[in-house]
Amino acid sequence: MSRQLQARVPRGMRDILPERMIRRRYVIDQVSRIFEEFGFEPLQTPSFELAETLLGKYGPDAEKLIYQAQHAGGKEELALRYDLSVPLARLIAMHRGQLHFPFKRYQIAPVWRAERPQRGRYREFYQCDCDIVGTTSLLADAEIIQLIHALLSRLGFKDFTIHLNSRKVLNGIGRYSGVPADQLGSLYRSIDKLDKIGMERVQEELRESQIPSEVISRLAGLLQIEGDVRSVLGRLSKELAQDSEGRQGIADLEEVLCYLKALGVPDKQLDIQFTMVRGLDYYDGIIYETSIEKPKMPSITGGGRYDQLIGLFMKDSLPAVGTSFGIERIIDAMEELNMLPDSVRGTVVRALVTLFGPDQAAISLQAAHQLRQAGIHTELYFKQSSLKSQFKYANRKGIPCVVVIGPDEAEQGKATLRNFMTSQQVQLPLSEMPSQIRRWIGN
Amino acid sequence: MSRQLQARVPRGMRDILPERMIRRRYVIDQVSRIFEEFGFEPLQTPSFELAETLLGKYGPDAEKLIYQAQHAGGKEELALRYDLSVPLARLIAMHRGQLHFPFKRYQIAPVWRAERPQRGRYREFYQCDCDIVGTTSLLADAEIIQLIHALLSRLGFKDFTIHLNSRKVLNGIGRYSGVPADQLGSLYRSIDKLDKIGMERVQEELRESQIPSEVISRLAGLLQIEGDVRSVLGRLSKELAQDSEGRQGIADLEEVLCYLKALGVPDKQLDIQFTMVRGLDYYDGIIYETSIEKPKMPSITGGGRYDQLIGLFMKDSLPAVGTSFGIERIIDAMEELNMLPDSVRGTVVRALVTLFGPDQAAISLQAAHQLRQAGIHTELYFKQSSLKSQFKYANRKGIPCVVVIGPDEAEQGKATLRNFMTSQQVQLPLSEMPSQIRRWIGN
Repeated sequence: MSRQLQARVPRGMRDILPERMIRRRYVIDQVSRIFEEFGFEPLQTPSFELAETLLGKYGPDAEKLIYQAQHAGGKEELALRYDLSVPLARLIAMHRGQLHFPFKRYQIAPVWRAERPQRGRYREFYQCDCDIVGTTSLLADAEIIQLIHALLSRLGFKDFTIHLNSRKVLNGIGRYSGVPADQLGSLYRSIDKLDKIGMERVQEELRESQIPSEVISRLAGLLQIEGDVRSVLGRLSKELAQDSEGRQGIADLEEVLCYLKALGVPDKQLDIQFTMVRGLDYYDGIIYETSIEKPKMPSITGGGRYDQLIGLFMKDSLPAVGTSFGIERIIDAMEELNMLPDSVRGTVVRALVTLFGPDQAAISLQAAHQLRQAGIHTELYFKQSSLKSQFKYANRKGIPCVVVIGPDEAEQGKATLRNFMTSQQVQLPLSEMPSQIRRWIGN
Repeated sequence: MSRQLQARVPRGMRDILPERMIRRRYVIDQVSRIFEEFGFEPLQTPSFELAETLLGKYGPDAEKLIYQAQHAGGKEELALRYDLSVPLARLIAMHRGQLHFPFKRYQIAPVWRAERPQRGRYREFYQCDCDIVGTTSLLADAEIIQLIHALLSRLGFKDFTIHLNSRKVLNGIGRYSGVPADQLGSLYRSIDKLDKIGMERVQEELRESQIPSEVISRLAGLLQIEGDVRSVLGRLSKELAQDSEGRQGIADLEEVLCYLKALGVPDKQLDIQFTMVRGLDYYDGIIYETSIEKPKMPSITGGGRYDQLIGLFMKDSLPAVGTSFGIERIIDAMEELNMLPDSVRGTVVRALVTLFGPDQAAISLQAAHQLRQAGIHTELYFKQSSLKSQFKYANRKGIPCVVVIGPDEAEQGKATLRNFMTSQQVQLPLSEMPSQIRRWIGN
């Protein structure tokens, strides 16, 4: 065939080899299971959207990162999915009549962003979202927050805190401090940088935005109220007594906290943080993100209520609430911290059936077939070589059990089973292999 | 927000809504499970490859269907995955040192082709491949064919036939008939059209290729040998007694048939078909495809041995054998023929917890939580509305069980459970709900 090519992948993209893929899939399966326990339905949108669907939604800096695509003779301008939210809004507008509302869906799927590649960050990566569309009930907000708690706990994370805030409360704080209505947006943008640049620099930015310094200091006071969730809200509600939107935001948070208490989400894993803004413009109710202490991950989930986004694609918007999980970082952290159970091995194979000699090929095939029918993931060794090298292969690959059928065993309808984890070895009738292997590998 | 957009997807692409997604995922899960029973490992390649990796591999007609992509300031020429074979070859060349050989992998993933959209055919669709790389053993060929048989049987297909041939045998037939070596390629291309255009038109094409008519008639005679698998090979082996490659091809097929017999694959589901060529140039050993009678699907799988393909990306090639399953058509057929078990419903939700009134919100939340912890997929109704309309919602959505906790029940720590499939209704302590629901839904 033609000239030999250098085998490469595009910059910022990667192959996921079996060992890592098995671990990755374990986490994704766990996450899907929890979503479904909560009644979220799976769905799929195409990887491509019309460019017009995506452009103008993420701001100019993000827009530069969108991949565009075309084919010979194609007349449409196409773009690769940049997140899962805009496609959801588009889908709901298109299929509204076929869906049951409130519509709960989850999606775990790749998105593409041409960001500067760096360690652990790729240009193709998975996003993981769940959303509830079509209800303003705060039970829905509470359910999403409970789901965050349940999911991270079930995966084995312990030291995490869910930080709550409300865009309504933020508006109230802004107004009460004296920030003009048309400057609330730049107020959010400045506060959003607090973690990165510190309170002093934020105050400086606000001064540069022509916000008077007495306003800024009043604002700084309110933003920095600290304490347990209930006392923080109590103190703020006294300050905002005159602001109806602010009061509403506080009442919303109190109602959600009450639901979370009924569900046994411990107060100590919740935190009201008025300085948490969530960058995206489209949030308009309660917002939340989650930080994990170990490994340090400042924002492993992010979400909130966005009642207007879907209105981009249809006349009457639909209220919506949801969250994203940083699934790539969750997977990395779980690998790093050895949070995966022992049953998640580097191979799917649980038993290797060895090949003794040409005359034993048929019986080895049959033994492998029998194990497979019993649901045991089985590999048949294809090459006639010494048992030693077949054992070595199993060992190197991490296959826990090996089945040997030599001429003697074949004659008696038996097999010798070896457990690599314990070095145990037994000889037993072929029909008893599956249950013995299951006892050894524990399933 | 800005002007309202018309919600559309690109031509030839589609959303998959939950009802269909649940059925689809059931099939894909079954298929993955069988692959893993056979010891194939999962892996993932990026959706994008460098354009140079894909171009020149599929022929000029196919090449026009490849999607190209770019991002602002990007310097690489990128293309979207067109199949799963070329990326596999590229991956093996890149990661050879990290893999255990023989390397068995499966992949079920989307590919993109800008074909003319038509009913049931999309520009983004899933391919489903399994391959064994690094062994020339015919046990591997037999294993792939056995897997095809096991997989289709397990999914519930009955009237299917696996058609076998060998490129070596085809070469032998061509040479024996007198086709010059440099015309074997165009011979294959003509025979490949047999199903579509018939033997007469094929002979005409061969005449147009300057192949003498006595050669053509000898060829037609050989190609049309019919009968059961063993007698067909027996007859041909007499004719090709002088052609060593042809003889080798026949011996290969006989060895594989012998393995398949040991595995209990019935002869009547196998067929030697010398006119079956498989279009792709890169096959060089045994080849196979599968036809299903009901629903009529002439080629639901296609595969074979290709010992040179990987050599495109590295100095020493590696022998390989594998097959593709037409997973999209398999899913469509299983939906059409109602081959999915009753447990595959239009929703993941198994129980709806109703909301009686504001005072019952906490207890309803708790009940939902309890069911979820017991692994029962549960939805909580978010709106205070009549029980009748909550029941209607469950019914319309196909949720089999409803849990009602009114003030009386709440006081006694009880719930009323209703089974929509049988109209049964029972009142019982909250703690007994999970087991009762499991009995009803049968898992």
